[in-house]
Amino acid sequence: MRNFNYKNGTEIIFGKNTEVLVGREIKKYTNKILLHYGGGSIKSNGLYERVITSLENENIEVFELSGVKPNPRVSLVREGIDICRRNNIDFILAVGGGSVIDSSKAIAAGVNYKGDVWDLFIDKPINHPCLKIATILTIPAAGSETSSSCVITNEDGYYKRSAGHPDLRPIFSILNPELTFTLPKYQTSCGIADMIAHILERYFTNEKNVDLTDRLCEATLKAIMENALRLNLDSNDYNARAEIMLSGMVAHNDSLNMGRIGDWASHDIEHELSGIYDIAHGAGLSIIFPAWMKYVYKHDLNRFAQFANRVFNIDINLNNLEETALKGIESLENFFTNINLPTRLSHVNIGDDRIEEMSLKLVAHCDHVGNFIEIRQKEALEIFKLAL
Amino acid sequence: MRNFNYKNGTEIIFGKNTEVLVGREIKKYTNKILLHYGGGSIKSNGLYERVITSLENENIEVFELSGVKPNPRVSLVREGIDICRRNNIDFILAVGGGSVIDSSKAIAAGVNYKGDVWDLFIDKPINHPCLKIATILTIPAAGSETSSSCVITNEDGYYKRSAGHPDLRPIFSILNPELTFTLPKYQTSCGIADMIAHILERYFTNEKNVDLTDRLCEATLKAIMENALRLNLDSNDYNARAEIMLSGMVAHNDSLNMGRIGDWASHDIEHELSGIYDIAHGAGLSIIFPAWMKYVYKHDLNRFAQFANRVFNIDINLNNLEETALKGIESLENFFTNINLPTRLSHVNIGDDRIEEMSLKLVAHCDHVGNFIEIRQKEALEIFKLAL
Repeated sequence: MRNFNYKNGTEIIFGKNTEVLVGREIKKYTNKILLHYGGGSIKSNGLYERVITSLENENIEVFELSGVKPNPRVSLVREGIDICRRNNIDFILAVGGGSVIDSSKAIAAGVNYKGDVWDLFIDKPINHPCLKIATILTIPAAGSETSSSCVITNEDGYYKRSAGHPDLRPIFSILNPELTFTLPKYQTSCGIADMIAHILERYFTNEKNVDLTDRLCEATLKAIMENALRLNLDSNDYNARAEIMLSGMVAHNDSLNMGRIGDWASHDIEHELSGIYDIAHGAGLSIIFPAWMKYVYKHDLNRFAQFANRVFNIDINLNNLEETALKGIESLENFFTNINLPTRLSHVNIGDDRIEEMSLKLVAHCDHVGNFIEIRQKEALEIFKLAL
Repeated sequence: MRNFNYKNGTEIIFGKNTEVLVGREIKKYTNKILLHYGGGSIKSNGLYERVITSLENENIEVFELSGVKPNPRVSLVREGIDICRRNNIDFILAVGGGSVIDSSKAIAAGVNYKGDVWDLFIDKPINHPCLKIATILTIPAAGSETSSSCVITNEDGYYKRSAGHPDLRPIFSILNPELTFTLPKYQTSCGIADMIAHILERYFTNEKNVDLTDRLCEATLKAIMENALRLNLDSNDYNARAEIMLSGMVAHNDSLNMGRIGDWASHDIEHELSGIYDIAHGAGLSIIFPAWMKYVYKHDLNRFAQFANRVFNIDINLNNLEETALKGIESLENFFTNINLPTRLSHVNIGDDRIEEMSLKLVAHCDHVGNFIEIRQKEALEIFKLAL
């Protein structure tokens, strides 16, 4: 096990009807906020009104910026920064999914930075104060509700890049599973693929002697898959929604990362895909992750066999670990298929015409991605081919 | 799953040689501390000197209070409160195990309270500012390094009682597994029983639909038991020491408690035992917990069968769940025996002469203990009898 530091002070306020507490919670910190959200869904389902009422009850002044899209854009972030600067706002309330929260974090990081905010997504470190953030989560997926990082897309070239700082962890996050009842099935499944990927990125490590975190990863994967299949039968099953929402948080709050170094190549490769094609991040991951696994599994057959055995209850064939490993990968693909996610580029009508371009872009600003094995242009191209 | 709030902002600084960072970390908060510790072990093994050097390097003024014993006493807490008040100290560094940390928390809670600190362990709520605490952990067991509570013994009647407040969570805790190499085997095992009990108290809940936290509990139990048996073979196995130390923290940082209500009757019953007989808390738990399980298992056979199956890989006999449940309890007893812990009062030479007194004292100030089923005097007496 490696030496590590771990701290995650985000307060989780979890359960039915908890969004009405938002005004009281924010009042502990400020009287003025930027309310940041996406499109009309929070207006049509009544959430917007409940939030505004809770804020009004505490006399909190509200500035609004809506219009966040999936794969949130830096242009809207710049607008948000401008609003906060002009109105001396130091607290952002994000109401939405990972895109809205990530957009809020980018605004929070950019307000007190003198240059253009995109610098922080290229190479400039965040060493200035960030604004405070709180969230009301509506899509369990990205884990951004307790994470310290965010991913933003620059329309100028469609680069998708991440930035992070401990101060970008939200002060509090409100998680009410009822708010996810109205999520379409496909979006629910995409979120599930995202949280599974967050765990797998950490699971496939070269670090030996990480028993506890291995088992915590496996436990969370099993809880997610079990409840995802329940949601397939009844999308209004509160308990299944609650398990998924809680698991999405645990998957990315960094507790599963203690003492180990994750991989993250699949995320980086997927960012090239959704950066260009604007498909859902989760759908990109259900395509890319199995392909990555098929490319790398021989690097550590034991770990892949353990994954197959402990997550999918596949007996270990000690005379043929490769067989066991491949069964595990196949089981993951089958699970994704069972929740109606694509597992091949062809399933989302993407061919091979831009895979060389994507593999080149992936390492345009770095030597390689990934840690389990290092992925350069050549390896990325092979992974894209396995995903066709 | 129940609605819940969860927040744990303690920073974990984990790994080899991390204790030398203590001065630098404390300097972020203060220039003056109370250094609180137990007996001579930290002096004989060199830890005291390394800590003092690290503090001196940062010019931190150090007041000292040593002499904390297992089952820490309120009289020493009062001394610590006096030192802090006289010297305007607002930061306590605990170097030791759960007893030292708990004693520090009691001091931290008592300094700004106008009455006697023991009030806070009877019925007075903590609604005044507490001092800041940091810890260097030397005994993985109590989980006090990230918890919000503490347990103190009042020599006047040998009452052992707990108090808690979110502000009593340490600012940071340094966990270096190497510091535990010198722990005697018996003390190591007692710590392991304590952390297992912390998980089981949460596991045996009446809350339905707590899949993720069930699985996280089971994962942590398995990691602890696996590595405890490794330590049986080689007490200097760094990786096993690291897994045990990390697991002890996870067992009690409240993440395994999300959305559920734990039981805690076994802890309360054990406190009567170690309050009177001054045996190690962990040894008391390895006696009391199996007895409690035998008394309550029929209340939820499914949960006990799940425990047997998922933690000990015992096949579920659907035609006789009771058989499966009892095999699980037996397996836990066998595990405790394998790490040389007592599982009967007779193993520590305690007879039945004071079990009535203990069962009466248990509910002297409350209607009942426990939540899985309510334990009153009569039930407690039966549990003591099962433990004979």
